Amino acid sequence: MPADATLPDAALIDALRGIVGAQHVLTAADDQEPYVVDWRGRYHGHAVAVVKPAGTAEVADVVRLCAENGVNVVPQGGNTGMCGAATPTAPGRSVVVRLDRLNRIRAVSPLANSITVEAGCILQNIQAAAEAVDRLFPLSLGAEGSCQIGGNIATNAGGTAVLRYGPTRELVLGLEVVLPDGTVLDRLHRLRKNSTGYDLKQLFIGAEGTLGIVTAAALKLFARPRVSALAMVALPEIETVLTLLGRLRDAAGDRLGSLEVMSRGQIEVIRENVPDVAIPFALDAPWYLLIELTDTLAGTDLRTPLEAVLGEAFEANLITDALLAESEAQAQALWKIRHSVSEGSKRAGYVVSHDSAVPLEQQAAFARNVERRINEAVPEARVVMHGHIGDGNIHVLGILPRDRYPDMEAAAPVVRRINEIVDDETAAQGGVISAEHGIGLSNRARLGRVTGAADLQLMRRIKAMLDPRGIMNPGKVLPEPA
Amino acid sequence: MPADATLPDAALIDALRGIVGAQHVLTAADDQEPYVVDWRGRYHGHAVAVVKPAGTAEVADVVRLCAENGVNVVPQGGNTGMCGAATPTAPGRSVVVRLDRLNRIRAVSPLANSITVEAGCILQNIQAAAEAVDRLFPLSLGAEGSCQIGGNIATNAGGTAVLRYGPTRELVLGLEVVLPDGTVLDRLHRLRKNSTGYDLKQLFIGAEGTLGIVTAAALKLFARPRVSALAMVALPEIETVLTLLGRLRDAAGDRLGSLEVMSRGQIEVIRENVPDVAIPFALDAPWYLLIELTDTLAGTDLRTPLEAVLGEAFEANLITDALLAESEAQAQALWKIRHSVSEGSKRAGYVVSHDSAVPLEQQAAFARNVERRINEAVPEARVVMHGHIGDGNIHVLGILPRDRYPDMEAAAPVVRRINEIVDDETAAQGGVISAEHGIGLSNRARLGRVTGAADLQLMRRIKAMLDPRGIMNPGKVLPEPA
Repeated sequence: MPADATLPDAALIDALRGIVGAQHVLTAADDQEPYVVDWRGRYHGHAVAVVKPAGTAEVADVVRLCAENGVNVVPQGGNTGMCGAATPTAPGRSVVVRLDRLNRIRAVSPLANSITVEAGCILQNIQAAAEAVDRLFPLSLGAEGSCQIGGNIATNAGGTAVLRYGPTRELVLGLEVVLPDGTVLDRLHRLRKNSTGYDLKQLFIGAEGTLGIVTAAALKLFARPRVSALAMVALPEIETVLTLLGRLRDAAGDRLGSLEVMSRGQIEVIRENVPDVAIPFALDAPWYLLIELTDTLAGTDLRTPLEAVLGEAFEANLITDALLAESEAQAQALWKIRHSVSEGSKRAGYVVSHDSAVPLEQQAAFARNVERRINEAVPEARVVMHGHIGDGNIHVLGILPRDRYPDMEAAAPVVRRINEIVDDETAAQGGVISAEHGIGLSNRARLGRVTGAADLQLMRRIKAMLDPRGIMNPGKVLPEPA
Repeated sequence: MPADATLPDAALIDALRGIVGAQHVLTAADDQEPYVVDWRGRYHGHAVAVVKPAGTAEVADVVRLCAENGVNVVPQGGNTGMCGAATPTAPGRSVVVRLDRLNRIRAVSPLANSITVEAGCILQNIQAAAEAVDRLFPLSLGAEGSCQIGGNIATNAGGTAVLRYGPTRELVLGLEVVLPDGTVLDRLHRLRKNSTGYDLKQLFIGAEGTLGIVTAAALKLFARPRVSALAMVALPEIETVLTLLGRLRDAAGDRLGSLEVMSRGQIEVIRENVPDVAIPFALDAPWYLLIELTDTLAGTDLRTPLEAVLGEAFEANLITDALLAESEAQAQALWKIRHSVSEGSKRAGYVVSHDSAVPLEQQAAFARNVERRINEAVPEARVVMHGHIGDGNIHVLGILPRDRYPDMEAAAPVVRRINEIVDDETAAQGGVISAEHGIGLSNRARLGRVTGAADLQLMRRIKAMLDPRGIMNPGKVLPEPA
């Protein structure tokens, strides 16, 4: 990382103030605190300054200044990431670039089913802007009230609507990106079809800010679901999910919206730790499945086909119990169980969480093997699972007792052991270690265990081509060369 | 393009025979003929050999041999492309690599809604394999009986189902690719969610073989539509399409499958030149629109909502006539008109065809301006249009009389003039010059007129990084540096 110029800190800060205005450059430790620690509180970084540019041109000027001075640039959205990708932890001087002030919705077209937004827009505000023109922006996840769309794009975020609408990557029509040399790449068109050379925007989706800073995006909108039917069913074993999925696809076609699984242990953790969540059924089965059908036409009867599938599934011993939501309130209460997994688990202890995706047919073996092996290797870990089982994405959580494992340092040896088991089973089943959370800092060392050497080499060549000085979010995603 | 070794032709051919077997190396001019001329008959190339490897390893060996000898590698699927991307026209020696023998369907999973195929599989065979397990592979286009999926992926092909299912890029879950140095990149997983670093496969989709050779792909399958409703409607002006589209989206939600437009002139060209196509309505309106609703649930009534929208549209003067298909046979007869546009136009004269996509709201202005300006500049051109109007993709065709314009050379000045008009209007409306056909040879010089300098520069850096010797399909896609 050679620096062409090396302004001392004070002069660098002055130059940053000149670009974004003095009140948008945070240098005091107290002011910086929310932006140099990740939300799980595991990584503590250090920055010369946290800056809040007002628009794309200011972002570009900040990046150019940093590039000229060999200063690391750490882009940060809502700072809600799971893997520490937005914390300034690399050696050398860092500037954190917050996108908060790039928060305009630039255009909405219900006819073209598109919305153009700046990177700092809160996900929930985009959902609301879509709803205001009677459309759906389907990306939905726990942090939607505070995460920013730029961060969602940078991590290729998933959530509960992927089964029907795909991950964030598939929702992006166009991007505006500031490259590591300060150039602005304008690929912000809203076209559905484009075969004019290489699709450059794809490079920046899921790159976690290591190749540039996303400053704006054109996104897809969809027809809004008008009706839905929701059921919580109990499964005698995880293996029956696939058969049930097949029957649901046959009966409901593409009306199958969500398919979310929770282990009994996961629901117990919620019951024990989140008092205001009601569990309106006996916890006597090993697995529970939330099934949602949706339709974009008001008046469509979804309940009858769902009841029919579940009735037949009961007869065939694929499920042992089923609860159909009788009202919107009841449906929300069932969804609330699912939405409480993070909170409940966090309160239960020190959470070692995983985000593997494996081919659908391998999910049952993956879940069984991982649970057995963690129980054997780390008996004090409480192994619970939840996830997007229609997408092959089960989150395995090892919850460690807080008294023995108060922090990351204490937990480190056990975390390593659990990670090895999950990585080993993920690779054995042909999966990947991150379905939707990204790599960031947490999973960087693990990436090489499951991703091939040729792949890693090509990723490194892309990084070197776009960011030869290595200033864009250094130390994230790509593992150190062996 | 420095060559490390320079085997003379005879020795190179011997080495190729050693890799793929003597009977799969074509060197005689007659044998090569179908593979060194594009299907429109516009580009005539020359190859040292046309080779047909049997599998990925043989493709890799052929590429490695060519790389070591500084020989151009020109990948070719069904040779049905519109832009000459698969014809060996670059200076120096070329080897054409046909993928025909990589034609296995490796795996089908109706549960995971995925199919894994080799690059040489004919599109129609993939559609049939999906149907055999009661699933849909939605990519559908005129050449589906002879085009190969590898070529579809390389051009990011479009077709008539993009409105509902997206272009080829959105149908690809994973790829296996031979890189320009012969390395095999295995990204063939079938995972729906993957946030583990850069999404390398995206580089090769739409790259038209300039960055590597796609040898296999994992593709998405979908629930099969069980019912459909089809109407042909007459429009008083193209502007009313957008309002109608909005009403269809409101009434039918995501059941809107296709929306294909044809100008009156386009249908007249078909009536005059394709005798077995029936036109069961008077051609008294300037535009005609084919509307198809589909549903994955048998028994769903699509006709009633379609009739309702059309009735209201008639009252509101958005349409002047409507013909609802009363039977599957009648629906197929209406689709046949749409599927005859290429054949009819080709018989009508020398076709200068375009493939622009513009934002939906700009389509009417684009169509009007282009028609007027071509009519002014080239009065002998018959300007007709058809396209995927729900995607913003209207194909503008200038049909020139064969007697005055027998071949590409004679037509060149007029083609240049028409291209300039289309490119100028495309850029003015914020569009791109290729929605689904690609760039290849035909559009290479035009790319720089509509694509930004920063974009082109980044494309060139990607090309140089992956193919430093410039042996992969040279002279395609990227324009010569100014």
